[in-house]
Formats: sequence, structure tokens, C-alpha cells
Amino acid sequence: MGQSEPVSGYHISRQPTRPLLLTQWLPFMKSHTEYLSFTIPTRMGFLNITPTVEAIVAKTGIREGLLLCNAMHITASVFINDDESGLHEDYKKWLEQLAPFDASPQRYAHNRTGEDNADAHMKRQIMGREVVVAITNGKLDFGPWEQIFYGEFDGRRAKRVLVKVIGE
Amino acid sequence: MGQSEPVSGYHISRQPTRPLLLTQWLPFMKSHTEYLSFTIPTRMGFLNITPTVEAIVAKTGIREGLLLCNAMHITASVFINDDESGLHEDYKKWLEQLAPFDASPQRYAHNRTGEDNADAHMKRQIMGREVVVAITNGKLDFGPWEQIFYGEFDGRRAKRVLVKVIGE
Amino acid sequence: MGQSEPVSGYHISRQPTRPLLLTQWLPFMKSHTEYLSFTIPTRMGFLNITPTVEAIVAKTGIREGLLLCNAMHITASVFINDDESGLHEDYKKWLEQLAPFDASPQRYAHNRTGEDNADAHMKRQIMGREVVVAITNGKLDFGPWEQIFYGEFDGRRAKRVLVKVIGE
Repeated sequence: MGQSEPVSGYHISRQPTRPLLLTQWLPFMKSHTEYLSFTIPTRMGFLNITPTVEAIVAKTGIREGLLLCNAMHITASVFINDDESGLHEDYKKWLEQLAPFDASPQRYAHNRTGEDNADAHMKRQIMGREVVVAITNGKLDFGPWEQIFYGEFDGRRAKRVLVKVIGE
Repeated sequence: MGQSEPVSGYHISRQPTRPLLLTQWLPFMKSHTEYLSFTIPTRMGFLNITPTVEAIVAKTGIREGLLLCNAMHITASVFINDDESGLHEDYKKWLEQLAPFDASPQRYAHNRTGEDNADAHMKRQIMGREVVVAITNGKLDFGPWEQIFYGEFDGRRAKRVLVKVIGE
Repeated sequence: MGQSEPVSGYHISRQPTRPLLLTQWLPFMKSHTEYLSFTIPTRMGFLNITPTVEAIVAKTGIREGLLLCNAMHITASVFINDDESGLHEDYKKWLEQLAPFDASPQRYAHNRTGEDNADAHMKRQIMGREVVVAITNGKLDFGPWEQIFYGEFDGRRAKRVLVKVIGE
């Protein structure tokens, strides 16, 4: 969980679903939980995690339901937007204008604690903690350009993302 | 789906729920999915979609559960706030200050792609992609002033909204 | 519901779950709904409601599912971040910069209605209306620092928060 990994890699901690016997043929509610881990090598960065989330959905066998995907850390986000590098540069610049990095405790009282990441807590509020996505016919029910991103605002260390699917 | 429609109209694409037989008398999980389509005639605008969402909830027969309502496009929002025209004007002015429209690629790298809507991707992050609403006793479990809005930041073309209800 | 209470107190309105008979031994979907009420004595303030939400989860007996926690008022938020007083001061200062309080109708058209809280509707959009949290093994499935806050932007009166749990 805590091991450092490159931006393009991730670590999956599986929580096995309980074995389904006869009940798997009835529309009982099923659930499935996984934990992903990412280490973004820069302070701020965005990683497209859609293929990983799609693979989890396929594995669960859930046809109709809801998927929750959230950052488990409070200086990171999970959000849905476009996979376009120019837009990502724009987001970084824009977030830096709205909540500039400043390690000094003069601007941010939070940094009196010895932390330097008050700005990251604000950037995360703009970009959001979580997304909830419909599962329809066994797939993420997405519009044409929707992609799920992990958004990092205080990187260079491993952080976790939770994926939970409930449905039938 | 792709046809142009007025701001006050919408197009519903129904996905039929599977027929429920004996199982409808037991608290099995049910789900229901619908796709709405809206064409806002201006670049930015807000449309109260609460009556449409309420009608979907009533039709499903689901008494207890959760409803997801999300924009399927990444320059649009679904959010909950007040149906007051002055406030909507304030939101437009405020969002324009936080993320001004600028078609040039000098301000926004995204607009080097030939797009002119980088600002709309930012406005959408402020206002959010989705809402999750409790269904209690067969109805949207809302406080006194809560209303669901479709928020458009790059309009004048048809865009879709997904409504998914799960529950029993 | 409408009675005034101190920031450290809250009022719970219980909606009893239906009695579960034989079906409680099968993985049928269960749901549980509660309404909390808070009166923050200042215009803006944040209250850690995690212990209250944890107690609700424990009471439901739901092992695997999703929890929705949302403000039922449109000038308040429910969000997840750090329980650090310096950060909370930073949030207040930052939100005041992004959407300053101004009772006059010159800055905000909404205040022509006689209201003075247009800024609170904006602050709420930044901080969000709701959180959706995974329930795993009967508990809120949280990262190390995640805490749920009620965020008030137009306080000094009682407002409600909805907690809904679905799962099995």
C-alpha cells in the first residue's frame, strides 16, 4: 500500500466479494470494493484511471448499479473531465491562481502546523473528492468524452483511491 | 438524441426496466435508467429539471433508494440550488469572473485544439457534474428550497443528462 | 426540527426502518434514513459530524453499501476534509475572497429579493452539497484523515442534514 510507484503504475488491493451461491441467480444486491494506489511524481498532476475502473466493473459482473470512486486523501481528487493535455495545463494554471502554493504560515494558517499543503486542500475542494457513475448493462454509463481522473495536489507519495460498486 | 430542441423541451430516451414477476413483492434491488436531452439556446444557462426527475421517480415505483443525476457532457453540470432568477444571473457573472470565456489559445492551451470552450470545462468543475439524491417514501427527499438544475456552459447544441435510480 | 440549538449539539429525527423478518437473513437491500439538525451560532462555520454519522452506520447493521450525507439547505455544505482549525480559518478567508459577503443588491442581483445571502449560495457551490461514502465491513471506509463536516455559510438558524444508507 505504502510503496512508491510511478505515475503510470498502480497497486490494487483486492477485497474479495463473498462467494455467491444460489443467490447469484436472483437480483440480490451485490457489492465489490477495491483500493488503488498511485504515486504522482510531481506536486500537481492528473492521471486517467478509466481503464482500471472499467476492468473492476467488468470483473464484478454487476449489470445495473452505482459506482463510487473517491480519493481517500484530502489533498487529492477524483473527477470526470476531458483527457486533453492542454486542458490539464489550463487546470493547473487556473487552480494555482485560485489557491496559490505558499509554504509560509503568513498566507495559510494551516501551514503553522509544519505542513506546506494548505493550497492543496483548497484545490481539492474545487475539483471534488469523488464521482458517482451509473453502471448500465455491465458498463460505466458514460457520455462520449467522460473519463475518470485521479487529481493530485500534493504528490510525490503514495495515495489511495477507493472504488465501490453496488448493484445486481 | 442529436436533434435540436428548445430550452423548455427535452427528449427522453427510455431504457425499459426488466419485467418484474414474483420478485417485485420482495425487497430485491430494482434499478431504472433514463436519458434526457437538452438544448440551451445560449452559451451559458440554467434549466430547472426537477419536475422531469420527479416524474421518473414516480414511474419507477421505487420507495427507498438513491438517485444519480449527472451531465453526460464535460462542459455542463447538474447541481442543486435555488430557483431564483437573480441568483442565476449572479452565478453567471461570478463564473465568468472565475473562468472568463476567451477563445484565444493565449489564455487557454486547450483552445489550441480548435475548441473555444476551455472556460466551460472550468465552470463545470465549480458547479459540479452530478447530484445524488435520497428517495424516501417514493419521493425525492428534499429540503424546502432544493431544486435540480441542468447547468450549461457551452450550449446551442443538444446534450444529455443521465438519471439512474436504484432501490426497492 | 425548527428549534435552535448550540453548535456542539444536534437533533436527530429518526425514520424507523421497516421491521425485517426472515428477509433479514438474506442479502436483500436495506435502507435507513435520518435527519440531523444544526444551528451554527455564526454566519460561517464548520462542524465535524463524523461521530454522529458513524453512530448511524453502526445502528443500521448494514455491512456493505453506500452512505449519502447532504445539506438539505442551499446555503450550506457537507464536505470531507481535515479537522484542523488553521485550515478551517484558511477556508473561511479563501471563500470570502472568492465570493465576498455583500448585502447590497448592487453586487448580487439575488439580494434584490430582500435576502442578503447570495454569497452563501456561491460558497456552497465551491464546498459542495453532499458526500457519498462507502460502507465496508460495517464501517465508513475512510482514508487516514477523512472527516465529514457540516459547512454553514448563512447560519444562526436551524438547518437540516440528511443521512441515507443503502446496502445489505
